[in-house]
Amino acid sequence: MNLLYAQSGGVTAVINASAAGVIDAAREHPGRIGKVLAARHGILGLLAEDIYDTAAVDTVALAHTPGGAFGSCRFDLPPEDEQPALYDRLFAVLAAHDIGAVLYNGGNGSMDLIGRLSGAARRRSFPLVCVGVPKTVDNDIEGSDCCPGYGSAAKYLATSMREAGRDVASMTGRKGRVFVMEVMGRNVGWLAAATALAARTPDEAPHIVLLPEVAFDEVAFLARVQAVVERLGYCAVTVAEGLRGADGGVLMKQDRDAKGYVQLGGAGEAIAHLVHERLGYKQHFSVPDYLQRAAGHWISATDHAQAVAVGRAAVGYALEGQDGVTAAIRRVADAPYTWDVVPVDAAGIANLERKLPADFIAADGMGLNEAGRRYIRPLICGELSIPCVDGLPAHYVIDQPLLPRQLPPYAA
Amino acid sequence: MNLLYAQSGGVTAVINASAAGVIDAAREHPGRIGKVLAARHGILGLLAEDIYDTAAVDTVALAHTPGGAFGSCRFDLPPEDEQPALYDRLFAVLAAHDIGAVLYNGGNGSMDLIGRLSGAARRRSFPLVCVGVPKTVDNDIEGSDCCPGYGSAAKYLATSMREAGRDVASMTGRKGRVFVMEVMGRNVGWLAAATALAARTPDEAPHIVLLPEVAFDEVAFLARVQAVVERLGYCAVTVAEGLRGADGGVLMKQDRDAKGYVQLGGAGEAIAHLVHERLGYKQHFSVPDYLQRAAGHWISATDHAQAVAVGRAAVGYALEGQDGVTAAIRRVADAPYTWDVVPVDAAGIANLERKLPADFIAADGMGLNEAGRRYIRPLICGELSIPCVDGLPAHYVIDQPLLPRQLPPYAA
Repeated sequence: MNLLYAQSGGVTAVINASAAGVIDAAREHPGRIGKVLAARHGILGLLAEDIYDTAAVDTVALAHTPGGAFGSCRFDLPPEDEQPALYDRLFAVLAAHDIGAVLYNGGNGSMDLIGRLSGAARRRSFPLVCVGVPKTVDNDIEGSDCCPGYGSAAKYLATSMREAGRDVASMTGRKGRVFVMEVMGRNVGWLAAATALAARTPDEAPHIVLLPEVAFDEVAFLARVQAVVERLGYCAVTVAEGLRGADGGVLMKQDRDAKGYVQLGGAGEAIAHLVHERLGYKQHFSVPDYLQRAAGHWISATDHAQAVAVGRAAVGYALEGQDGVTAAIRRVADAPYTWDVVPVDAAGIANLERKLPADFIAADGMGLNEAGRRYIRPLICGELSIPCVDGLPAHYVIDQPLLPRQLPPYAA
Repeated sequence: MNLLYAQSGGVTAVINASAAGVIDAAREHPGRIGKVLAARHGILGLLAEDIYDTAAVDTVALAHTPGGAFGSCRFDLPPEDEQPALYDRLFAVLAAHDIGAVLYNGGNGSMDLIGRLSGAARRRSFPLVCVGVPKTVDNDIEGSDCCPGYGSAAKYLATSMREAGRDVASMTGRKGRVFVMEVMGRNVGWLAAATALAARTPDEAPHIVLLPEVAFDEVAFLARVQAVVERLGYCAVTVAEGLRGADGGVLMKQDRDAKGYVQLGGAGEAIAHLVHERLGYKQHFSVPDYLQRAAGHWISATDHAQAVAVGRAAVGYALEGQDGVTAAIRRVADAPYTWDVVPVDAAGIANLERKLPADFIAADGMGLNEAGRRYIRPLICGELSIPCVDGLPAHYVIDQPLLPRQLPPYAA
């Protein structure tokens, strides 16, 4: 049988490391796994029969390239009873390419896909094992202590806040200044919380972290900014893109697509302008946007190792016939940090959303407490030397043709 | 005599490397240089008599810390005939601390300060040698082939564009997408131009670079975006913060301070929204802001070496009595890149602004040509291993008291 790898959702700096882990581990079992295939743009590529043979892929180079080399997509697989023809097509493609194992890399929605695909295969008595590979910079998948992609984005953002803090502190000559950095994370504050690690002392940036788990209190926030500026001359603030007001609504959003997927953004600018208008301070704001989830030049060695490990473990589960599970990271100890990979039921964790727990949040709601620091700290540790050419990271790009199609084109 | 170091203007990822170069070189001449002093917040610290003795400073750690450890300021020294009392104060502080050499680190405005301070000393027969140390991420100082600070910001931005390009390319499933990154540089396009190095082929990001040297042509720009999206499914655009329309005015500005110093910003968001409105593509934009000039974790080894070298050379010029010069970088050859440091007259280059030359700009005005690439490429080369603690760069912070004041407080 052949094995197929595919991925969905926002990509990360280490999602290709998971792909490399899958490919490398599968190559170690030539007797049991024939071809290692990869769908282009996730489940959509499987539907379209857009499939690569990864035999020629340089997995060492792939593992150091951010973004999703095989492409990703945003597409929620509907239940089979709603769109049976779609499932018929999926299984026709799986059969045409002799695919006996699907390893699907993604977040909460992808865990759902694994359960649905696995169930549909069982109902058809189609010999298929479906295994999940977790991934998200948001770190919001239940059942895994942390998610590959998070540690690297967290390291990048904490580093950026520490560095920008040095810059802002340099210029505090005569006038109050505020610096705001808007970070991703959608409804959860894991990435925002990570920036708190930048501060070695209460006087270092960030002085305030605004989390989506805590309703924004404008009065308390402005009072805190003013107190920090009066003490230090400046104030650095992290704002989660999904910051919510007391009414529970997000403060700012950019756009909403046809499917209702809300694109967040603008909370950082709104907070910077609020401070400028109310307190008169000079403001600067940063929106790293994609930079924070693509920063392959500054990944966490721990995160990279975990990304590879979940990919490799997923191959092992597939070979053992552990259908419908996802590879999850289990924390064994905080310091020194030790972890392993265990299988968890994919359907059981599908579509859940793990928020930053209240017992990680500082008493005043504007930062991270020591328990939170102890959780995040090991995930950002370790630096990797990245191969460069002419001063820039050497990225690997898939430049091979797709496999010839066996089936007629798919009309969705 | 004692030597005083000070700095003005926006800081960089390697300005502390220049400070370390000054301190290290001065320490090598204990017979001729007594104390190596540093003013806090530049010329304002000299006026206020806010002075550090750097004897205890760890220059190795300092050289790997972004931002300005001794502080910076935005203050243009007026001509002596306009404010003679201010000059009296400056020379009183210089005399009180037995300062015979001032090494001033800054951009175009600071070169002016050196000429003024030097002229005032000569008129008073005050034994003082004033030497400039160049610095600016904007790379707009005349007389120096490049400016310390530029190479590191350029490397960071080109890396970021390459990485974000991987991310955007991953998601081009069904709908056109545009990614815009707004970069600094004020009136000049050196930083924007550097991002062009991210593209190894015309299909890689960035596909378009909007420079302040070229009036924005909305029709030509939108046509290009559409052509790229139709070819690739997405388009990545670099926008200089100082982008100007056909009328010569900047497209967007954030604020203007009491002195008329315009804070730029918003051009990237404006361009992203323009594309979304006119072409209907999904848009994302990044505003790295301070992150691009503070990214000590990803500096150019070439830039770092040049920052140290101009600091060291300035000490040499001071010891030789070369008053009123600034240390400048001279390019000897492009490939392999060789350079040295030479003295140039500070007053002669003061307040000039070196724009990106027309013969570096692509024929269509939306990119960099090969001559431009050949100029920038060596400046971003070389990676340095940065000391980290708990996964984050280990920064050095001055935590010593200022020297006791010898004079009464200064009332400006």
